[in-house]
Amino acid sequence: MKLSESTTGPLPGSAKIHRSAPGRPDIKVPFRRIELGGGEKPILLYDSSGPFTGQEPIDLAQGLPPARSWLEGRGLEARQALAPQGLEHPAPRTIRRRPEGDEAPFTQLECARAGIVTDEMVYAAAREEVSPTWLRDEIAAGRAVLPANVNHPELEPMVIGRKFRTKINANFGNSALSGAGPASMADEVEKMAWAIRWGSDTVMDLSTGQHISPLRSWIMRNAPVPVGTVPLYEALERADGDPLKLNWEDFRDVLIEQAEQGVDYFTIHAGLRLAHVPLTASRVCGIVSRGGAIMARWCLAGHRESFLYEHFRDICALCRRYDITLSLGDGLRPGAIADANDAAQFAELETLGELTKIAHEMGCQVMIEGPGHVPMDKIADNVSKKDAFCGDVPFYTLGPLTTDVAPGYDHITSAIGAAMIAWHGTAMLCYVTPKEHLGLPDRDDVKEGVIAYRIAAHAADLAKGLPGVQAHDDAMSRARFAFRWHDQFNLALDPERARAFHDGTLPKEAQKSA
Amino acid sequence: MKLSESTTGPLPGSAKIHRSAPGRPDIKVPFRRIELGGGEKPILLYDSSGPFTGQEPIDLAQGLPPARSWLEGRGLEARQALAPQGLEHPAPRTIRRRPEGDEAPFTQLECARAGIVTDEMVYAAAREEVSPTWLRDEIAAGRAVLPANVNHPELEPMVIGRKFRTKINANFGNSALSGAGPASMADEVEKMAWAIRWGSDTVMDLSTGQHISPLRSWIMRNAPVPVGTVPLYEALERADGDPLKLNWEDFRDVLIEQAEQGVDYFTIHAGLRLAHVPLTASRVCGIVSRGGAIMARWCLAGHRESFLYEHFRDICALCRRYDITLSLGDGLRPGAIADANDAAQFAELETLGELTKIAHEMGCQVMIEGPGHVPMDKIADNVSKKDAFCGDVPFYTLGPLTTDVAPGYDHITSAIGAAMIAWHGTAMLCYVTPKEHLGLPDRDDVKEGVIAYRIAAHAADLAKGLPGVQAHDDAMSRARFAFRWHDQFNLALDPERARAFHDGTLPKEAQKSA
Repeated sequence: MKLSESTTGPLPGSAKIHRSAPGRPDIKVPFRRIELGGGEKPILLYDSSGPFTGQEPIDLAQGLPPARSWLEGRGLEARQALAPQGLEHPAPRTIRRRPEGDEAPFTQLECARAGIVTDEMVYAAAREEVSPTWLRDEIAAGRAVLPANVNHPELEPMVIGRKFRTKINANFGNSALSGAGPASMADEVEKMAWAIRWGSDTVMDLSTGQHISPLRSWIMRNAPVPVGTVPLYEALERADGDPLKLNWEDFRDVLIEQAEQGVDYFTIHAGLRLAHVPLTASRVCGIVSRGGAIMARWCLAGHRESFLYEHFRDICALCRRYDITLSLGDGLRPGAIADANDAAQFAELETLGELTKIAHEMGCQVMIEGPGHVPMDKIADNVSKKDAFCGDVPFYTLGPLTTDVAPGYDHITSAIGAAMIAWHGTAMLCYVTPKEHLGLPDRDDVKEGVIAYRIAAHAADLAKGLPGVQAHDDAMSRARFAFRWHDQFNLALDPERARAFHDGTLPKEAQKSA
Repeated sequence: MKLSESTTGPLPGSAKIHRSAPGRPDIKVPFRRIELGGGEKPILLYDSSGPFTGQEPIDLAQGLPPARSWLEGRGLEARQALAPQGLEHPAPRTIRRRPEGDEAPFTQLECARAGIVTDEMVYAAAREEVSPTWLRDEIAAGRAVLPANVNHPELEPMVIGRKFRTKINANFGNSALSGAGPASMADEVEKMAWAIRWGSDTVMDLSTGQHISPLRSWIMRNAPVPVGTVPLYEALERADGDPLKLNWEDFRDVLIEQAEQGVDYFTIHAGLRLAHVPLTASRVCGIVSRGGAIMARWCLAGHRESFLYEHFRDICALCRRYDITLSLGDGLRPGAIADANDAAQFAELETLGELTKIAHEMGCQVMIEGPGHVPMDKIADNVSKKDAFCGDVPFYTLGPLTTDVAPGYDHITSAIGAAMIAWHGTAMLCYVTPKEHLGLPDRDDVKEGVIAYRIAAHAADLAKGLPGVQAHDDAMSRARFAFRWHDQFNLALDPERARAFHDGTLPKEAQKSA
């Protein structure tokens, strides 16, 4: 089982190289290297694309080679996984977790607080070209997370936090109609690989339908980036799609299964409480978050408090045994400009602050999810409110879309908001494709969305003045001034399009050097 | 001679209607009306697209019917134009200008200062749904301009100023290789009509080659929006492309010819002085403005002061006779992130402030052109500097691009900057297409650029809290919440794409109402 040719191999004019972390020759981290003309030194760029942009062929049924070989030696509780029924491909060979009752530092947060620089921190710091101890201190303070489930050895560790390069996430997932065979599974891996090829730093698997679990095995075993899920979606599948059949015990079973598969972060909509639901009554667009709508229905139907809220400590206890990062979902995020920054959204955000404290107490890493639809003048206030309620834990926002009037172009309406909110302190941006509000994104839409978000993230990093970021712009500008066209193509976020657009007007080779 | 079908007729689901200005049944202004389901009242949107989106067929060789019929009665100096040689189509039937030495209020600025509400002001105020006297006061203060050459009777008057709806401009123009026949001329009119169909508020004709003058006649006689030019380009054509052959007398002849054709605003690079040129020596990208490069060459070669600067009062005196708005060009705008907000740019901006005072003294309307390439964190400062040097005359910016690393996507890198700078006070945004830095935009690129800029402008107007703007978003949000798909398509900036994207996933008619 292989990926298509257009999804594999280096980007045009780029090479994947590995460089040892300073002082750690055993830890080699990837970069995209671009050779330049005009006597310039090659430039190295952060590279989230994993082995797919390398030269080695990858057999999807075998999965990626482990990047975290050090996991073997951590003395964790371990058992052999059963091979999934009827699938050619292996589950993780060994399922690990923290032993029951073990209080030695284990999660990245616990280790950081104990002054330990983990191998994951060394790896992530080398990618960011920062000091590992400084990165550790950011994690210890809760300002950054390093999502890395111990059951995800294929992961190339990375860090999410406002002082680091802004990250982006792409969603994907199969639908109820997808098949269960290896070809269907390979299709889904192809989608993931395509998103990270163009620069997505993490992916969320939002699959539905009956084959969620085997599909996720395929994804996890081939994912070099952190994978997030919304476990409520799988719980709802198991409850035959009826929110009223949801309960804590079944939900916990989903968490455990996904934890053993290696999911790195869980979106948990535990901040939407019964008392918040009436605050949405006067909204133009009500509740647009799928997780939010499910939980609101569950709460209202029985007039009862959310089981996610009531069992939040149990959720933390479970996540802590695998080092799964909690991404506290914003079930009441606004779905319209009219609903931005309203009482419902901020009431939930205040609860997320309360839950952040609990998760931190229990040693779990936390991110806060954010909107949605927000006009430009309310973006700074949105970040301030999140900081006021939740402190400076990483903010992870969807867009936001800065207007509702341009369906078909919501990668642009939201790239504007995403660039601004990232500048104001968002650590990771969840992408939006041109098909938002209209249909399911295809391959081209995914690429459009990812590139628009890489632009937003890079523009924000420039504005934040992160060290080294402008070197990329400056290399492009010098190439432009000298009419070095090949260098301009190769330095582009999308070398293929840059070349095609140029050649559409001036196709001759001589026109690329003058 | 006709435009293509795809460029004419109403947008899907929209109708062009005309509504009388309050208290002035004789002045009828256009709107785009969208009928809505769900018991909602129709919504009226600002409409810059002119008669092309109406129902009446238009013969390009005849030109548009006059929208400013009142020009007949203004007692101006008038003479009959000669028909252009070898072209089927008429020059303006009558060429008008202010009589020599006449000191009665004539330009929109002079009239506004004298307390006169012109018919153009009534028209523009009705489009903006604001009071004509308030609009007049904005013009009197220099905070707004109403570009309307008396030789452009086809113009539907509009206003540009930070307190009004943010405007956008699209550039187009033929190249040296284009033909001189009616078919070539119709191609250029088609480009203009296509840009305004999708929401461009003005156009700039940047044509080069030997047929500039007849082409401009075709454009002017078919343009319902203000048309701007860079007269230096035509002057350079007449100087056989050699900047050193440029001189004031030939330049003046170009100004007069274009003034008689009806050009509404001139970009004049009079702020680039000899002393500024050395300030660009340490730049990464030098001088990227074409007008700037021409003038810098002229100044340096003879080590002499710019003839545009030295003859600025003569330029104003000429513009004042036709009421041509001056758009003071930024010949030293940065062409790279590294060059943003540098000494060269701000030195020229200071000179533009000096020229603004002169133009205002002489009764001419003024806009200031702005960058270019500016990272997000320097955008507010860029606007502040412009305000400090030039007061609050309308700022007219190209983008700005917020990063250099995404050729092929510069409509997005710059839509981010455009939305922000418009929120901070820019009155008009010059669009950027995906082909920027790479090649000549085709029809699709023009549409992508215009829509990206309409998004940026609308997002800024929302953030500025302009009255009535959010009604469009709210109508869309309500249609979304009620699953009224036809309304969502029809309310979209691009109804065609919204419908096509939806139908790509869910093509059946039944899926459009639930």
